[in-house]
Amino acid sequence: MDMNNNSKKFYTLRILPNGVLVTVNVGETILEALLRNGIPIESVCGGKGICGKCAIRVLDGLLSEPTLQERKWQKAIGSNIRLACQTKLLSDATIELSEISATKNVKILTLGKRIQTNLSPSTIRKATFLTKPSLEDQKADLERVLSELNTAKFDPLVLEKISKTVWSSNFNVDAILFEDELLDVVSHSNDSHLYGVSFDIGTTTVVGYLYDLSNGELLSVKSSFNEQIKFGEDVISRVEYASRSYENLKNVREAIISTMNKIIKELLEEAKIDASQVYDVVCSGNTIMTAFLLGNDSFYSSRAPYIPPFTSQVKIKARDLKIEISPSGYIRTLPCVSAYIGGDVVADILVSELFKYEDPVALIDLGTNGEVVIKNQNGIFAASCAAGPALEGYSIRHGMRAMDGAIESITISEDGNEVFFKTVGNKKPIGICGSGIVEALAWLRIRGIVSKTGKLLENFARVKKEDNELQFILVDEKRSGTGKNIVITQNDIRKIQLAKAAVLSTFLILSRISKTKVEDIKKLFVAGAFGNYIDPFYAMVIGLLPEVQKEKIVQIGNGSGMGASSLLLSKELWKESIEVARKIKVVELNLIPSFRQEFINATFIPHKDETLFQGTLKSISSFGEEE
Amino acid sequence: MDMNNNSKKFYTLRILPNGVLVTVNVGETILEALLRNGIPIESVCGGKGICGKCAIRVLDGLLSEPTLQERKWQKAIGSNIRLACQTKLLSDATIELSEISATKNVKILTLGKRIQTNLSPSTIRKATFLTKPSLEDQKADLERVLSELNTAKFDPLVLEKISKTVWSSNFNVDAILFEDELLDVVSHSNDSHLYGVSFDIGTTTVVGYLYDLSNGELLSVKSSFNEQIKFGEDVISRVEYASRSYENLKNVREAIISTMNKIIKELLEEAKIDASQVYDVVCSGNTIMTAFLLGNDSFYSSRAPYIPPFTSQVKIKARDLKIEISPSGYIRTLPCVSAYIGGDVVADILVSELFKYEDPVALIDLGTNGEVVIKNQNGIFAASCAAGPALEGYSIRHGMRAMDGAIESITISEDGNEVFFKTVGNKKPIGICGSGIVEALAWLRIRGIVSKTGKLLENFARVKKEDNELQFILVDEKRSGTGKNIVITQNDIRKIQLAKAAVLSTFLILSRISKTKVEDIKKLFVAGAFGNYIDPFYAMVIGLLPEVQKEKIVQIGNGSGMGASSLLLSKELWKESIEVARKIKVVELNLIPSFRQEFINATFIPHKDETLFQGTLKSISSFGEEE
Repeated sequence: MDMNNNSKKFYTLRILPNGVLVTVNVGETILEALLRNGIPIESVCGGKGICGKCAIRVLDGLLSEPTLQERKWQKAIGSNIRLACQTKLLSDATIELSEISATKNVKILTLGKRIQTNLSPSTIRKATFLTKPSLEDQKADLERVLSELNTAKFDPLVLEKISKTVWSSNFNVDAILFEDELLDVVSHSNDSHLYGVSFDIGTTTVVGYLYDLSNGELLSVKSSFNEQIKFGEDVISRVEYASRSYENLKNVREAIISTMNKIIKELLEEAKIDASQVYDVVCSGNTIMTAFLLGNDSFYSSRAPYIPPFTSQVKIKARDLKIEISPSGYIRTLPCVSAYIGGDVVADILVSELFKYEDPVALIDLGTNGEVVIKNQNGIFAASCAAGPALEGYSIRHGMRAMDGAIESITISEDGNEVFFKTVGNKKPIGICGSGIVEALAWLRIRGIVSKTGKLLENFARVKKEDNELQFILVDEKRSGTGKNIVITQNDIRKIQLAKAAVLSTFLILSRISKTKVEDIKKLFVAGAFGNYIDPFYAMVIGLLPEVQKEKIVQIGNGSGMGASSLLLSKELWKESIEVARKIKVVELNLIPSFRQEFINATFIPHKDETLFQGTLKSISSFGEEE
Repeated sequence: MDMNNNSKKFYTLRILPNGVLVTVNVGETILEALLRNGIPIESVCGGKGICGKCAIRVLDGLLSEPTLQERKWQKAIGSNIRLACQTKLLSDATIELSEISATKNVKILTLGKRIQTNLSPSTIRKATFLTKPSLEDQKADLERVLSELNTAKFDPLVLEKISKTVWSSNFNVDAILFEDELLDVVSHSNDSHLYGVSFDIGTTTVVGYLYDLSNGELLSVKSSFNEQIKFGEDVISRVEYASRSYENLKNVREAIISTMNKIIKELLEEAKIDASQVYDVVCSGNTIMTAFLLGNDSFYSSRAPYIPPFTSQVKIKARDLKIEISPSGYIRTLPCVSAYIGGDVVADILVSELFKYEDPVALIDLGTNGEVVIKNQNGIFAASCAAGPALEGYSIRHGMRAMDGAIESITISEDGNEVFFKTVGNKKPIGICGSGIVEALAWLRIRGIVSKTGKLLENFARVKKEDNELQFILVDEKRSGTGKNIVITQNDIRKIQLAKAAVLSTFLILSRISKTKVEDIKKLFVAGAFGNYIDPFYAMVIGLLPEVQKEKIVQIGNGSGMGASSLLLSKELWKESIEVARKIKVVELNLIPSFRQEFINATFIPHKDETLFQGTLKSISSFGEEE
């Protein structure tokens, strides 16, 4: 430091990867400076150095000494990180911000990237300029178009309007084609768009993506609870309900169609597009969700020998399903593999490109139905488990979807008396969504408020008994948006334990059966409806994910939705998906004698066998240390 | 004759082609003997020798001398015939009965014959015995069936019920296939039938045929007026109506679908078959009927340059058309050629096999829309004309379909005072159908009650004036089933003249354009909704058909319906129909300058140029001769 610096009122901070420059006042923390300059950065605990969300990497410059809190985080996670809320500048500096936080992964595959390199949708719009008919050339309207397109296949609905379109547009039309089938003929337009929707049909959550198929642009994303949830939270109870009568099956089917139509309506409203311009819908879902959509109750999937009704790719006219897009358009579903390894897993595998790796790699899809895939030199192994909807915020007392007011991130102070949190949209808290639930349980465990077996301990101020059940108060009624306490109950914790035990035990069994050592795994892809939002560090703290090094983890977000999107945008991938599905070897956990015991061991937090989480447990212990 | 014969009370009559033996009492006419023995034989005039319907050929035996009436018929038609009502036996004898009458054709192609030689329906039912699944063989229900069938194509509706069917039938199922597409899976049955319907969709009349596709058996035939008739009697007025609004088009479309569903219901009721067992419907109709069915108003067909909306074969799911058969079944329409040469003409050509002849041959389809086809060494030429519905019993004062009580055959006595007739079902007369109308006009002309220009002459007892219009009383109110006179009016005669002139002038122009002399034509195929019933002799008397020798005429009956039936029963023919349609050269009569004058000349009875009907006119003259 020279004299000049003493009189300096501010420093210049360069922020990578974009190279944005901001001023940081002397004495101001980096977090304060970033927020003042409108640079988005996560923070849950409000600058107390507890949550670790504002972690940055410093590339250049002089900084204040790490505080006690920072040193705890450095011990837990790595010495190369600093917390923006604790750090002040002593000179101009350069930091790296993007995709860095103390706990989170370093890579999230983005959909946009994938799509731009590979735009070849099955459904296209093709300008078609026709010669005009005369007494000497009386070729029919349809055949005039077909011969120009060099095809003979057409949807018979085309016959209804072809003449009006062809003549009123003076024989300059655009043909809508699905592969070599003429779906529709519309007046020619120079900026000729056409649209498609991809769906991730989860047991609990359904997500829809609207794309412009002419350029691959993602125009809107909407999601909703799967309306089928009223007929059962997990697939098995829904199968039981649907199998009881034709009327029930019809209800289950109509519930998903209604959910999809609602999402399509929202997507189209946001993008200001008419339903008649949407010609293709690709749906990814597990085998039973796919079967329900197509009107099969999956009864024989639910009992040994677990035979699915069908596993082929299906292509059905929108009018047959009453999906509200162009009636000539197609609804397509991904190929499935078995009763419990569905199109969603195929989608995950396509998106992660797991099948292309030489070294052992693994994938965990965190959904209501969880799936684990391990690829090694012996092949692609897959197994599924019933995790239940708890991780998606359903069935938990104050659980909710990741909507405005949902607590998505949480930190608990060392004494357990203070709770810091961040809500979606920074609204008043009204509940807690999946990622918040994982973090809440992690911090309850870190702070010793919950035992290894998952028991809430009474000797903490925020642990109260109500209706004979212990609960931890996350937000008291005064700060809550509902006017009532927001809590996590003992029963909630049990549900989370069961969910995470299902995933972890499935992973451990599959790694054993496929002869893959966890430490040999080079990549662990994490997918799922809330896969983008959970923090792998906390997921390991509670033993939801197995312990692997942070840099091996790749969160692919909603692999099911992304896979459906990729198939919507690439006819080659649509064909490839059949091959991928064919390669998957299904492991039936029901046939593994030790499954029950493995499951029970995995209900411990993180696991009964602590050697499986040595590194994580060591990190946690640093949070309790005084220096 | 020897002494023995004198004491004989009866002779033995052998009747060919069946060889049935009956006794004929001495003094009894052959007609009386046949009717007494329950042998069906036509007779209209009640044994007076006037109508010529009971003509027979005598092969062997002694008979009474020909009466005056018989000699008139022999002069008109040929010396080898006798009238059963006039002839008595003088010894045992042998006669030939089948398909002989004084005027009628000698050959009617029957559907049954055609079908037995050529049963290869596109839609089949195939017994499929599956291996049962197990934990070691978890192949899905659908793929288990598909792999056994060696196909990958399926109707997505199959997915709804495949599991229930496969499991409840203990894995012994029958697959319903349309070509290589799996339409349905049902429990296996040893006597495994499945059914199809063919339709002749005429502008005025719709006929449906129900077949068992497993053996080609015709189970039922039903017909009905086309409900579209309320929107216009001819295709042009219907096109005008349909083009005015989407609502109108919808009405026109729903009318034909309702007509078809009504006929299907009747067919199924008669055969006691469930609609769910019908998987294929083949429809033959003119281009505009076909377009209406598929929802196109044909507006551009109705004005130069007369461009049809489409001419390809169409295959559409029953559920898309709301045709009440199995929803996975197909409705198929024949290929068309131009706006006015439709699938019905292609059907006629397929049924007549006209395209296979080396020598010149011709075909006339007598429908509301009439069509003429001439095949010679230069190719297949076709032209159409608007005949109107008069020949089908519609738009005539007392016209009706060939139902119970319809006068189907008629004779008028020499003085014009007596009318002999036969009704369908031998019920009391309530109206007159197509064949009756042709015979009525023929006899009115033969007896000189109607002039060459078509004028009713007042100096006959049965010609009366009512509401300022002359009419001929066919049946007076006392004998009529309606309690009122059944008449043929001057206006009716004008309509028949216009109808027959349209057909005849089209034939004459096409023969000129195709450079075919009428006398060189080796076969004249006659088709049409009432083609089976009209008497070619009387059709020539009125100049509806051109004059060709009786033995050259082949009535193919309802060629359109038969063609549709053949396509239903033969997948090879279904493919061949595309080739046939492609070969047809359409002649646009609208482009022929002399058409108007040719048409006017043809309104004369039989034609302004009497040399065209020399033979017929000579025959007629014999009826007036006294011997």
